[in-house]
Amino acid sequence: MRVAVFGASGYTGLELLRILLRHPHFELAVVTSEQRAGEPVADAYPALRGLLDLRFTASADALRLAGEVDLAFTALPHAASAPTVAALRKAGTPVLDLSADFRLHDPAVYREWYGEHPAPALLPGAVYGLPELHREALRKAELVAVPGCYPTSALLPLAPFLRERLVETTGIVVDSKSGVSGAGRKLEAGYLFAEQAENCFAYKPGRAHRHAPEMEQEASEVAGAEVRLSFVPHLLPVIRGIVTSVYVRPRARLSTAEAHALLTRAYAGERFVRVLPAGATPSLAAVRGSNFCDVAAFADERNGTLILLSALDNLCKGASGQAVQCANLMRGLPEETGLLEAPFIP
Amino acid sequence: MRVAVFGASGYTGLELLRILLRHPHFELAVVTSEQRAGEPVADAYPALRGLLDLRFTASADALRLAGEVDLAFTALPHAASAPTVAALRKAGTPVLDLSADFRLHDPAVYREWYGEHPAPALLPGAVYGLPELHREALRKAELVAVPGCYPTSALLPLAPFLRERLVETTGIVVDSKSGVSGAGRKLEAGYLFAEQAENCFAYKPGRAHRHAPEMEQEASEVAGAEVRLSFVPHLLPVIRGIVTSVYVRPRARLSTAEAHALLTRAYAGERFVRVLPAGATPSLAAVRGSNFCDVAAFADERNGTLILLSALDNLCKGASGQAVQCANLMRGLPEETGLLEAPFIP
Amino acid sequence: MRVAVFGASGYTGLELLRILLRHPHFELAVVTSEQRAGEPVADAYPALRGLLDLRFTASADALRLAGEVDLAFTALPHAASAPTVAALRKAGTPVLDLSADFRLHDPAVYREWYGEHPAPALLPGAVYGLPELHREALRKAELVAVPGCYPTSALLPLAPFLRERLVETTGIVVDSKSGVSGAGRKLEAGYLFAEQAENCFAYKPGRAHRHAPEMEQEASEVAGAEVRLSFVPHLLPVIRGIVTSVYVRPRARLSTAEAHALLTRAYAGERFVRVLPAGATPSLAAVRGSNFCDVAAFADERNGTLILLSALDNLCKGASGQAVQCANLMRGLPEETGLLEAPFIP
Amino acid sequence: MRVAVFGASGYTGLELLRILLRHPHFELAVVTSEQRAGEPVADAYPALRGLLDLRFTASADALRLAGEVDLAFTALPHAASAPTVAALRKAGTPVLDLSADFRLHDPAVYREWYGEHPAPALLPGAVYGLPELHREALRKAELVAVPGCYPTSALLPLAPFLRERLVETTGIVVDSKSGVSGAGRKLEAGYLFAEQAENCFAYKPGRAHRHAPEMEQEASEVAGAEVRLSFVPHLLPVIRGIVTSVYVRPRARLSTAEAHALLTRAYAGERFVRVLPAGATPSLAAVRGSNFCDVAAFADERNGTLILLSALDNLCKGASGQAVQCANLMRGLPEETGLLEAPFIP
Repeated sequence: MRVAVFGASGYTGLELLRILLRHPHFELAVVTSEQRAGEPVADAYPALRGLLDLRFTASADALRLAGEVDLAFTALPHAASAPTVAALRKAGTPVLDLSADFRLHDPAVYREWYGEHPAPALLPGAVYGLPELHREALRKAELVAVPGCYPTSALLPLAPFLRERLVETTGIVVDSKSGVSGAGRKLEAGYLFAEQAENCFAYKPGRAHRHAPEMEQEASEVAGAEVRLSFVPHLLPVIRGIVTSVYVRPRARLSTAEAHALLTRAYAGERFVRVLPAGATPSLAAVRGSNFCDVAAFADERNGTLILLSALDNLCKGASGQAVQCANLMRGLPEETGLLEAPFIP
Repeated sequence: MRVAVFGASGYTGLELLRILLRHPHFELAVVTSEQRAGEPVADAYPALRGLLDLRFTASADALRLAGEVDLAFTALPHAASAPTVAALRKAGTPVLDLSADFRLHDPAVYREWYGEHPAPALLPGAVYGLPELHREALRKAELVAVPGCYPTSALLPLAPFLRERLVETTGIVVDSKSGVSGAGRKLEAGYLFAEQAENCFAYKPGRAHRHAPEMEQEASEVAGAEVRLSFVPHLLPVIRGIVTSVYVRPRARLSTAEAHALLTRAYAGERFVRVLPAGATPSLAAVRGSNFCDVAAFADERNGTLILLSALDNLCKGASGQAVQCANLMRGLPEETGLLEAPFIP
Repeated sequence: MRVAVFGASGYTGLELLRILLRHPHFELAVVTSEQRAGEPVADAYPALRGLLDLRFTASADALRLAGEVDLAFTALPHAASAPTVAALRKAGTPVLDLSADFRLHDPAVYREWYGEHPAPALLPGAVYGLPELHREALRKAELVAVPGCYPTSALLPLAPFLRERLVETTGIVVDSKSGVSGAGRKLEAGYLFAEQAENCFAYKPGRAHRHAPEMEQEASEVAGAEVRLSFVPHLLPVIRGIVTSVYVRPRARLSTAEAHALLTRAYAGERFVRVLPAGATPSLAAVRGSNFCDVAAFADERNGTLILLSALDNLCKGASGQAVQCANLMRGLPEETGLLEAPFIP
Repeated sequence: MRVAVFGASGYTGLELLRILLRHPHFELAVVTSEQRAGEPVADAYPALRGLLDLRFTASADALRLAGEVDLAFTALPHAASAPTVAALRKAGTPVLDLSADFRLHDPAVYREWYGEHPAPALLPGAVYGLPELHREALRKAELVAVPGCYPTSALLPLAPFLRERLVETTGIVVDSKSGVSGAGRKLEAGYLFAEQAENCFAYKPGRAHRHAPEMEQEASEVAGAEVRLSFVPHLLPVIRGIVTSVYVRPRARLSTAEAHALLTRAYAGERFVRVLPAGATPSLAAVRGSNFCDVAAFADERNGTLILLSALDNLCKGASGQAVQCANLMRGLPEETGLLEAPFIP
C-alpha cells in the first residue's frame, strides 16, 4: 500500500518516516514539506541518508496525487491540517490526522481553544484514534483523529476505573511530565539546550492547556458522566517521553491489589498497554522508542487517593506509532505490524 | 567562628564547603570523612584545589576537637548521625544535623521508618530547621534538624493555606520531581548516567517515602489538625533541583488572585521565598545554585482544586543552604549571610 | 537459525537482544547471565516485557546446549570470555566474540594489556570483525573478534588513506569522544549521573588505553608499515555514540576535494559507511541507534594536516550491530539483514 | 566603583551580572538591552528576582550616562560592539570589550573574518585581555579586548612550550569541545534541546572558525615566530564549559615529567591556572562556574607527540570572569576579587 505523509519535516512526521520505513506493507510514496519542497529528504535529515530516496513535495502537488495513494497521514499544525484533510477525503483517500483538528467532537469547544473550525462537516465522521477505547470504530474509519500525547498517557490508566464507576468523576488531577520533542521543532528561547537542560517546570497549570478538554471529552464518554480534571503539564529535560500521574478519589474502599487486578483485566488482550508487575513504576527508559504505554496503580487508602501512573514515548504511542496502529486496523492488518521494535535502551 | 563539617565527602557536605568558603563569618576548621581520613580535600574534590587547604579528619579525631569549634554541621547518614550529634552536644557544641535523625518529634514514628532511635533524649530539644516556620525557636536552638529537601518544597507553598484554614487537611497530593543528587552519591545502577539520562519515573508512590511523615508532622502543626497527604516523588535527569506540585481542595471558593495574594502576604518579609508574579510558574533554572524557593498558586475553581507550585535547589535551600540560614539565625547573624549568590544560569 | 548470547545482561548484550529480536533469520534461543540465572529477561529489563519470553541461563548450563545453537555471541568481560569461546569452538559452534580476547594477533601484546592469554591456540584462526576491511575472511570465519568501538571509529576514516600510502604512518593523533555506555554498566562514582551530566574530560591520554594497540595493529596491516598513533579518548555526557577526529600528515599536497573523493571511492559499495556530502560533518544524532558510520575529510593544506572525522553508535556499529553484520556474512545472508532500522531521531 | 554592562541580556552579559553582584568594589549602575529597554532585569531573568533592582536601558541612553560610570563592559555582537566602545572611549570611560572587535591587531585579518573594521583607530591601544600573558599591559589598559573562550583554553596550556621554544610552531592541532552556551542565545534549530541533547559533532574544522586567527596571533607573539594550527571545535551537550586538547611536536625529547614541570613553573604564581597533579586530566566538572583553567601535559614520546589538555568555563574564565579579572587589574584591585566562588559541583 502506498502512503503519503503530509508535513513530514516536523518531529512527528519524521517519526512516521522512521516507522513506515520498517513497515512491511506500507510504502512511503509521497512526503510533503512546504519550506523544503524539492529537497531530498536525506538532505534535511542526514540521519536518513541511505535509507530513503524521496524528495519533499509541496502539499498542493501532493494533493494532486491523492488518488494514487492508499492512505495519508497528516502531521500539520492545527487549523492548517483541516483543509488538507478535507481535500484528501474529497479524493476518497483515508486519512489519519495527527493535528488537533478532528479530536474534539463539539465545534464550540474547538472554537474556544483553536478558533473557528475549518471543516466542521467532517467532525461527525472522525474517529478518535485510541485503539484501546475505539477499536471497532477504527476498523471502519475513513478519518482518524490521532489523540494528543498527554491525553493518551492519562486516558489509558484512568479509563478502566471510570468505566467501572469506581472513582469520582470530579476533582481528578493529571500531573504530566513531557520531553521537549512534544513541543515540536519550535524556535523559542525556552526550548534551547542551554535553557532546558538541567531544567524542569510546570506550565499552563489547571485548565489552560489544549489537551485538557480532549481528556475530559474522552474520559466523560467512558464514564458516562461529565468528568472534570485539572491538568498540570511539565517540561522535562529529555528529548522523548511522557510520564503521567493521575490522582483520583475511589468511591469506595479500593486496595492497591484490587486496582492492579482491574488494570490487568482491562488490558489483558492489549499488545501495547503493559500493566507492570505489582510494585513496579513506569519509566521513560522502558518505553523510549517503542509503541508501549506502561501503566500501574497504587492506592493510598489512608488518604482516600488512587494513584495511576503511566509512561509512553510521546512521538510513538503518543503520536506516530499510535497513528500507524490505527492505520493497521483500518487496513485490516495485524495491529502491531511495524510497531514491535524494542525500546531504545540504554 | 570556627565550624566543623562531619561527613563532608557527600553531596550535601560538599555544598556546605562551597557555601562556607564564601561565608564571611564562618571559617572551615575541621572536615571529616571516614573513608578519606588523612587525604587532602582537594584530592577528593579537584574542584576545590586552590580554595581549601584542609585534610579530611576521621570523626573520632574530630570529636576530640569538638571544644575548639563554635558550630558543627553533621551531614552523615541517618542513624549514623545521632551518636555524633550526641557527642557534640555533650561537648557543648551547637549542631545543625542534616540527617533525618532529629526531624521527627515522635520516636515511635522514627522507629517505623528508620529503626530504634539512637538518642531519643535529644529529640525534645531539637528544632525543625525551616526558618520560615520556626524562626524564633531557631534563634535559641542548640540542635537543629535541617529539613528534608522534599518537605521544604511542599511545606513552603502549602503552609500559608493550612495556617489560614482555607483548605482541606486530607486528600492532599504532593507530586515532586527531584534531581539525582538528592539520592546522594549512591553506587546503584539506577543512578548511572546511562540509566538516568533521558529517563524519568515515579518511585515509592503514596506513603512509602520517608519524607511523607515529616511533611505530615509539620503540616499538621501548622494546620492545628491532622494532615494526610499522598506523596509521589519522581527522579529527574538533572543534577540538582526539585519542583513540586501540591494539589489541595479549598474549603470555600478561592480564586487564583486570592491564593496569590495570600502567598504574597505570607512571604512579604522573607528573603528566600519568592512569590512569582501572577501567571508565572517556578522553574529549576531560576533557583539552581541559590537558596531561593520560588512559589506560585493557581486555582482551578471549576474542578475544586488549588494547585501550589514550588522550585528549589535540593542541595541548597533543600539542605546545606538552609542549614547555613539556620546557623546564621543561631549565631545572631543576618539570615542571608553567605547565601545571596545568584542562581547559576544558564 | 538459533543463536545464543553469552553475557546478555550488559549493554552490548542488551543491544544484541534488541537487534536479534528484529532479525528475520536469527532466533534467540539461549541468553546467559551469571548473576541473573533463572530470572526472566523481562524482569531484568522491563523494556523487553512483552517482546521476549526467555529466562537467563547460567553459562555452564548454556554451554551444555552449545550443540543446539547455530551461532553464539559472547559479550563477556575480557579474559572471562576466552574460556567460554574455547568451549563453544570445541563444540563446533561458530562464535562472534565482543570482548578484547581475540582482537590482538600477538599474545605478547595481549599480555602487556590484559595479562596472560587464556586460549592462545585460538588466536591464529580469529578474524578481526570489521567487514569493510576483512569481508572475505569473515565469510569463512568460525571465530570473529568483533572490534572495539573506538578502533572502528578511527579505522574507517583512516584506512583508505593508509592503504593508498597518502599519509605519514607516524605522528597520527586519534581524538575520540564517547558516550558513557561504552564503559558498560560499571558501578563507579565517575559514571553516576550527578558526576557525568554536564561533564566532559579526557582520560588515559597517549597510549594508555587498551584500544590503542588494536588500532595500531589494524592500521599497520592496512598501511603495510608500522603505524604509530597517540590516542586520546574523552567521556561525553551522552548515553551512546562516538565521534572521532583523526589528525594525520599527508605525504604530498592533498586537497579537501581529493580527500573527499578518495573516501567516496573507497566506500562506494558499502552499505554502512556513509561518506557525507562535501562540507558536512558527522554527528551522533545522525547515527544514534543505527549501524551507520558517517565519515568526512577536511584538508588544512596551509598547516599540513588532514582532518578525518567519523561518528557511530558505540553499541551498534561499534559493537553489537557490527557483530550481527559479521554474523550475516558468516551465514551467507545479505549483510544488512536486521540492521536497517533508521537512526533514532530526534 | 560604578560599572555599566552593555548587552546584558545575552549569556556573557548575564554572567557579568552574576559576578558583579558578588563583587565587593564594583556596583552595577547601568545595564543595557535594546529589545528589553525599560523592562526590569528580574522580569527578563526571573533567576535574578530579589537580587537586582535595575531596569534595562537602551544603549543610546546609557551612553549619555557614560561619564557617570567608572568602567564599562561591552558584551555586544562583533561589529555592533566597536561603535559603542568608541563612544565610551571618547567619553573617557575605560572599556572591557567581550566581542571580537579588538582582539585582532591587524585590520586586514579582521576584514577577512568579520568585514571592514568599524573603529580601526582604537586597535593599537587595545590590550588582549589574557592576564597570564599580558598582565603588565593590562594594569595600564584603557581598552581591553577580552579573549575568545576557545583561544583562552588553547593558549594557556600551549604558551609555556612555545615561549621556551620546546615545540614545533607548525602542524599544531587544537581539538576543542564546547558547551552550547558558547553560541549565545541563538534561535537556531541546531541549538534546540531536542537536537543537541545526546548529540556531539565537529563544526568548521581546519581554519574555518573565527577563533583560529586569534589563537595564531597570540601564539605567534609568544613563540616569536609564525605559528600555524588547525582548529577543530565540537559542540557538546552541556550548557557550559570547554575542554581542549592541543597536539604539538616537541623539538627534542621531552618527557611527561618534564612537560609537567614546565607547566608547574610557568603557572607557579597564577591564581586561576591550576596545573593538575601528574596523571590527572582536566574536567568540566572541576571548573564549572569558576574562573579556573585547569591544565595538564602528557608526552607520547614513542609517537613524537605532546598532548596538552585544558578545561575552563566558557562563560567565566572564557569570557566574563576573565573580563572581571582584567578589570581588577585595571583598577588596581587584587586580581581575584569577586572571582573565588567555588566551582559548581555536583
